[in-house]
Amino acid sequence: MEIFYSADVYGNSLRLGPEESQHCAKVLRKRVGDAIDVIDGEGTLYHCTVVNDSPKGVEAAVNEAVNNWNSHPYRLTLAVCPTKNNDRYEWFAEKATEFGADCFVPVIGEHSERKVFKTDRLRKIILSATKQSLKAKLAQVREPLTVKEFIKESAASDAVKLIAYCFEEENVPRRSIKEVLAGRGSDEIIVLVGPEGDFSREEAQLAIESGYVPVHLGDSRLRTETAGVAAASAVYFEYM
Amino acid sequence: MEIFYSADVYGNSLRLGPEESQHCAKVLRKRVGDAIDVIDGEGTLYHCTVVNDSPKGVEAAVNEAVNNWNSHPYRLTLAVCPTKNNDRYEWFAEKATEFGADCFVPVIGEHSERKVFKTDRLRKIILSATKQSLKAKLAQVREPLTVKEFIKESAASDAVKLIAYCFEEENVPRRSIKEVLAGRGSDEIIVLVGPEGDFSREEAQLAIESGYVPVHLGDSRLRTETAGVAAASAVYFEYM
Repeated sequence: MEIFYSADVYGNSLRLGPEESQHCAKVLRKRVGDAIDVIDGEGTLYHCTVVNDSPKGVEAAVNEAVNNWNSHPYRLTLAVCPTKNNDRYEWFAEKATEFGADCFVPVIGEHSERKVFKTDRLRKIILSATKQSLKAKLAQVREPLTVKEFIKESAASDAVKLIAYCFEEENVPRRSIKEVLAGRGSDEIIVLVGPEGDFSREEAQLAIESGYVPVHLGDSRLRTETAGVAAASAVYFEYM
Repeated sequence: MEIFYSADVYGNSLRLGPEESQHCAKVLRKRVGDAIDVIDGEGTLYHCTVVNDSPKGVEAAVNEAVNNWNSHPYRLTLAVCPTKNNDRYEWFAEKATEFGADCFVPVIGEHSERKVFKTDRLRKIILSATKQSLKAKLAQVREPLTVKEFIKESAASDAVKLIAYCFEEENVPRRSIKEVLAGRGSDEIIVLVGPEGDFSREEAQLAIESGYVPVHLGDSRLRTETAGVAAASAVYFEYM
C-alpha cells in the first residue's frame, strides 16, 4: 500500500507538495482517474481520485475520509538526548516512529557531547517512516532544549513520566519500565533517555523531584538510541 | 567498562588477537600490571592482569573467572530474511544483540530479493555489540539457508517456534507475539521473520505444519529489520 502526504486539504480536494507530486506522477506514473491514498499527518487517511496528474502539483478529489486511521491508544513523548553519531539518532527516530511515537524532543544533557541538533532531516525521516508503517498522524518534532528545561516544563504534566538512567540514586530504587507501565495511571507517557555519558546526578534529582519515576530498561547495557527504541517498543507491547 | 575478547584462553592465561591487542596496548595504552576484563565469547568474563603489553599480542593472567556473566534465562534464535539494504540487516543484528539474541540465521525466502549473504561483517558487528552491551556470550551466526530448509531442520525442535507474517491463513488466526510468549512452554525460542515481500503461502503452510505458531507484531507495519528487533525486544521484555 503506497501512501502520500498532503498538508493541503481543502474541503473535498487536496494537493500534494512538490516532492510527493514528483513521486506520484513521475515515479509511480499515477494518472487522472487513478486511486491514491493520502494522509494529512493529523490522523486522517483520504481515499482519493487523481484529478490533475501534473508532477508539479498533483491534485485529487476525496472520496472517503477515515479519521484516526491506525491510531494507537496512547500518546508517547520520547525526550532522548542526541547521540554523538547523527545516523544513530535518525535510526532511533525512524524505528520509534514505526513502533508509534507521538512526539520527539531532542534534549541536551549536561553530559551531552552534541550540544547542537538540527531537526530538518529528522522530520523527513519521520514522515517516510509514518507512511511506511501505515500511520496517518505525524509525530511532532520539538526544537532542542536542555534536559533541565524539559523537566521543568513537564513537571506539571500528569503524564506517566519516566526517566531511564544507569546509576542508582540513594533511597530511589529504579523499577523496570515494564512494571511501571503496567501500573500506569495515564495513557500519556513521557520517557527521558540520557546521552552516552548518562544524565548528571543533578538532572536525575530534578527529574525525581518533578514527578519522574526512575526506571531501568533491563539488564543489558543499551546504547542511547537502543534505549530510545526499547522505550518505544515497551510501550508498544504494553498496549498490544 | 571496557571489555576485550579472547578466543585463546589456556589455564590461567589468555592472549588477545591482533585487533584486540592493538586496541588494548596501542589505543588504550594498557601496560604490564594493568587490570583488564576479557570475555571468551562462551559466557565467561575474566578479570585479568596484563603480563605482556605487546600490540602484536597482549597476554594476561587470569585473576578471576565469572561464568555465565550477564547471561539471560532464554535462548533466542532469530531466523530473519536478509534485507535488500545490507546496512539495515547489520543494524538489526547489532540491536538484537544488545537485547539479547543467541543465534542469527540469515534465511532466504521465496520472495527474497537478496539470495546471497556474507556473514563476515555480521560477526564483527555482533562481537562489538556483545562487548558494548556487557555480555560474555557471543551469538552464533549461521551460514544462509532457505526458509524451507530452516523450517524442516527445526521441525523436530521443541522450542517455542514463531513465524511472523502479514497475511491471514484460513483457519489459522495469528495471535500477538506477546500473548504467545506469555503462554510459552519452553525457554528456547525461535522467531522467523520474512523478507520485504513477506513469506510465500507455501512457506507459511510448511511452517504451520512444522509446529510454528503464526504471530503478528502489532498493528504497525514494521520493516523487516524492525520486525526482527521487535521480536528480540518482545522476548527481552517478556523475561524482564
